[in-house]
Amino acid sequence: MEHPENSGEYKGLIVNQGIEQPSSVSPYLKRKPKRRKRSVAEFVEGIVKGDVTVLSQAVTLVESVKPEHQIIAQEVIEKCLPYSGNSIRIGISGVPGAGKSTSIDVFGLHVLAKGGKLAVLAIDPSSERSKGSILGDKTRMEKLSVHPKSFIRPSPSAGSLGGVARKTRETIVLCEAAGFDKIFVETVGVGQSETAVHSMVDFFLLIQLAGTGDELQGIKRGIMEMADGIVINKADGDNLDRAKLAASQFRSALHLFPMPDSGWTPQVLTYSGFYNIGVKEVWDMIYNYIDFVKDNGYFEYRRNEQSKYWMYESINEQLRDSFYQDQRIQTLLQEKEQGVLRGNLTSFAAAKDLLDVYFRQLRQ
Amino acid sequence: MEHPENSGEYKGLIVNQGIEQPSSVSPYLKRKPKRRKRSVAEFVEGIVKGDVTVLSQAVTLVESVKPEHQIIAQEVIEKCLPYSGNSIRIGISGVPGAGKSTSIDVFGLHVLAKGGKLAVLAIDPSSERSKGSILGDKTRMEKLSVHPKSFIRPSPSAGSLGGVARKTRETIVLCEAAGFDKIFVETVGVGQSETAVHSMVDFFLLIQLAGTGDELQGIKRGIMEMADGIVINKADGDNLDRAKLAASQFRSALHLFPMPDSGWTPQVLTYSGFYNIGVKEVWDMIYNYIDFVKDNGYFEYRRNEQSKYWMYESINEQLRDSFYQDQRIQTLLQEKEQGVLRGNLTSFAAAKDLLDVYFRQLRQ
Repeated sequence: MEHPENSGEYKGLIVNQGIEQPSSVSPYLKRKPKRRKRSVAEFVEGIVKGDVTVLSQAVTLVESVKPEHQIIAQEVIEKCLPYSGNSIRIGISGVPGAGKSTSIDVFGLHVLAKGGKLAVLAIDPSSERSKGSILGDKTRMEKLSVHPKSFIRPSPSAGSLGGVARKTRETIVLCEAAGFDKIFVETVGVGQSETAVHSMVDFFLLIQLAGTGDELQGIKRGIMEMADGIVINKADGDNLDRAKLAASQFRSALHLFPMPDSGWTPQVLTYSGFYNIGVKEVWDMIYNYIDFVKDNGYFEYRRNEQSKYWMYESINEQLRDSFYQDQRIQTLLQEKEQGVLRGNLTSFAAAKDLLDVYFRQLRQ
Repeated sequence: MEHPENSGEYKGLIVNQGIEQPSSVSPYLKRKPKRRKRSVAEFVEGIVKGDVTVLSQAVTLVESVKPEHQIIAQEVIEKCLPYSGNSIRIGISGVPGAGKSTSIDVFGLHVLAKGGKLAVLAIDPSSERSKGSILGDKTRMEKLSVHPKSFIRPSPSAGSLGGVARKTRETIVLCEAAGFDKIFVETVGVGQSETAVHSMVDFFLLIQLAGTGDELQGIKRGIMEMADGIVINKADGDNLDRAKLAASQFRSALHLFPMPDSGWTPQVLTYSGFYNIGVKEVWDMIYNYIDFVKDNGYFEYRRNEQSKYWMYESINEQLRDSFYQDQRIQTLLQEKEQGVLRGNLTSFAAAKDLLDVYFRQLRQ
């Protein structure tokens, strides 16, 4: 029997998309009246006051590829930094069909019932491809999207994973400065983006379904070991026993893994996002974890490690870009790769030849 | 009860260590008579004939840090390339105490009983630290070390993991050209070196012991998912039931992972290296795997991917080295990292500042 939640296709976040809309002013008019540009100080003031319109515009600047936007964005972020950091950041991952959007809707209402403000961000570099279909689909987080204390922003759609991750991380700073004390970062559990999300959150939640082997094909190897908690969705009706069995299988599998650095044993729970069953227990677990790692110092340690990670990751990515985007290298790379595959030269000799060309060129 | 195998400490490979011995000639003599240097052609000829002395000297050149040795070594490797590739390469990993050396001794005798020649190499960048204690310890692979068809070489002890891995991979080429049709690459399952070994072998075997949780602390997260086969050692006497239980736990844990790209479901077996029980079954599994992936094309695909991996890995490592070993960057890096940790600048702004300095300097 098909689960009721499977009636539509889930494709990540869909609300408040940030790309430019066609102008409503006739393109034949010579100039359209320009909106006055905000200064950096005005952006910061608006954000710190919690003005969601200003926050939203600032995020659009962060996502912009125009250099003049980036200059303002970086200044705004830097001035917001002192106001940031006071939130708990939760990464939420799961393959398409696991029921992420429905779950985030009920999770969001649950955490907002205690007060505070919630920002829901996403990292999904693939959303570019399916941009068209996402636009029409504004009903995924039905209740959360109309909640006055929520701010939902879809994945920045432009560029590499590194670029997208950077924008999301910078958006976290802005949201925190605007007083959002809970941040969800959603991702689809099929690519490289989990590592990125894992490296910017305090708790990494993996949503799974009952089922083994074939049904898990979508999940990337290694993701399970990143999880601070695994929750089996759709534990309702006919599916309840299967979900409970899956939970106990995951629980014993996790015992075979070494203890994570946090000292926290990852928990496995079942719930139903659609029927809103077991949601409190999921969040009690997450709050327990936060208390636990704040007590033992791991919370701050992890955040510091993450800051360093992004500095080094950003350096390494740009070093690679400088090399691989070089015109001459791109041509030579093909050639050398073929030489390696045909067994004419070793991988290391090929690398050396290419690096010699690159550095000689740079130094000219 | 302590297992009989635990009486000594296991520390990786120990035979034929390649570092220079103190000269037996009095240092007060003006010159010691020099051994005539072999030409590249002589090296290649000797290796292809299967002369183990020549092979051994060539490996010493590969491991040397002297530029004049490296030039010869690279020429020799390149000329040996057409003769290489005709072997099966097995990675063998497991934490200290898992019984790797004893196992490799019996595994080696088992594969040699069918004919052919076996080279045992290792990747253990940490061996540098314990160099002293390794020297006295020549009895680890008792039978294999005196077998006429075996060639045992410990981990190159110099330098970074990348450097060590490179030397091991180049040594594989030389061994294959010398007619070794089975290559074992041993590693200790606690660091980054498993990824390196996994990326140069056809089959990755993980040796485990019965026990969960605390006892597995040593194993690095993510290694289990690399294994093409997991074998539980010390399945003998009092320990047999625990080993069988462990095997069934690993087996169900592996079912929760997605199928590897090879299309092969990783197997879990028990054996006893010390009492030589179940060794045939382990190797039947490995041979089955090899047949399976040679049939479905994955064997060749994986080797090609590995060649590319090492080319790109080598490029990326040297790009990083060029940056991080720069004197000025090293000083600035500390400063920027502190700025990031104190919340004065974002990780990305810090990265940008550093890269600006680096490239400006290079272009001067």
